[in-house]
Amino acid sequence: MSDDASQAKGNFKRFIPEGDSLERLVCVDCGFINYENPKIVVGSVVHEGGKILLCRRAINPRKGFWTLPAGFMEQHETTTEGAMREALEEATAKIEIEALLAVYSIPRLSQVQLIYRAHLATPGIAPGPESEEVGFFSFDEIARKELAFPSVHWALGHFRAVADQAHFPPFANPPGELGDLKPEGL
Amino acid sequence: MSDDASQAKGNFKRFIPEGDSLERLVCVDCGFINYENPKIVVGSVVHEGGKILLCRRAINPRKGFWTLPAGFMEQHETTTEGAMREALEEATAKIEIEALLAVYSIPRLSQVQLIYRAHLATPGIAPGPESEEVGFFSFDEIARKELAFPSVHWALGHFRAVADQAHFPPFANPPGELGDLKPEGL
Repeated sequence: MSDDASQAKGNFKRFIPEGDSLERLVCVDCGFINYENPKIVVGSVVHEGGKILLCRRAINPRKGFWTLPAGFMEQHETTTEGAMREALEEATAKIEIEALLAVYSIPRLSQVQLIYRAHLATPGIAPGPESEEVGFFSFDEIARKELAFPSVHWALGHFRAVADQAHFPPFANPPGELGDLKPEGL
Repeated sequence: MSDDASQAKGNFKRFIPEGDSLERLVCVDCGFINYENPKIVVGSVVHEGGKILLCRRAINPRKGFWTLPAGFMEQHETTTEGAMREALEEATAKIEIEALLAVYSIPRLSQVQLIYRAHLATPGIAPGPESEEVGFFSFDEIARKELAFPSVHWALGHFRAVADQAHFPPFANPPGELGDLKPEGL
């Protein structure tokens, strides 16, 4: 676990610490090891009258493409707090979490995505600083080729698969899929 | 996401980067920002004939106390690969994952725990380097006060609650619980 105090004055170099088997970021002054672990993305499929909240990305990667309100979890929050914060930051949306829809692993990026199903707690959405545009879209209106990431596509499909169920086990990656962008699109 | 190449020669200091709102670990040579995010613990409740696999910790924190095979997820693996690796490392156990039992958040430690339900894929367990002792125990044999962490206690309870169900939504923290050790024990 991280130790904020010992990192504050850190002078970090990368090497394999004694007794370890992998390269780590080590403070050469105090010996503190900053273990790097996969990062957690928290987000949600926010639905309203059969339509889904999507945000057009104002930042790279995949600027201009559409994504779910989602982003890196911050320190000292819970997973649902993180998903609610991201919806607020990216779409000014106050949401209520319903259920965990999916846990996706993107090993190439060392990323784990926790995607919840949610609805608006209070009406109203507007683009946050990282979104060019936000809106609710029916499935017919969503162009697959304009989605930012494979996992957005997965989450929309998984949302539809359990749209009539209140309780369900969360989905994982579709078989054989690791979240890599393909030359032919999603 | 992390960028291994730019971290390799990093000379990291902690401050609030321009345009950000939180302190980050920044390389003062190249400007690379090493965002710190919550860490993921992957583990499993491994069951066999109504008994549960527990490991007596050979290392701190909570050396000598009993825990589930679980640990920090490494880079470039999936969540289930991580849970399988931990069972192998801590109990020399080859396991098969059945279902996601729980997603716990421990905000004080900036930790998210993904706990799976699993069974042995091949017979045989033995202590790994981080375990003093491993064994399968019935619920009557498990002493609550000898468990290492609150989340071990939660996971055992949640396992029992769905022991007869093949498909179920994963549990979250028990209401009001944030995983802090209490003076009176778990």
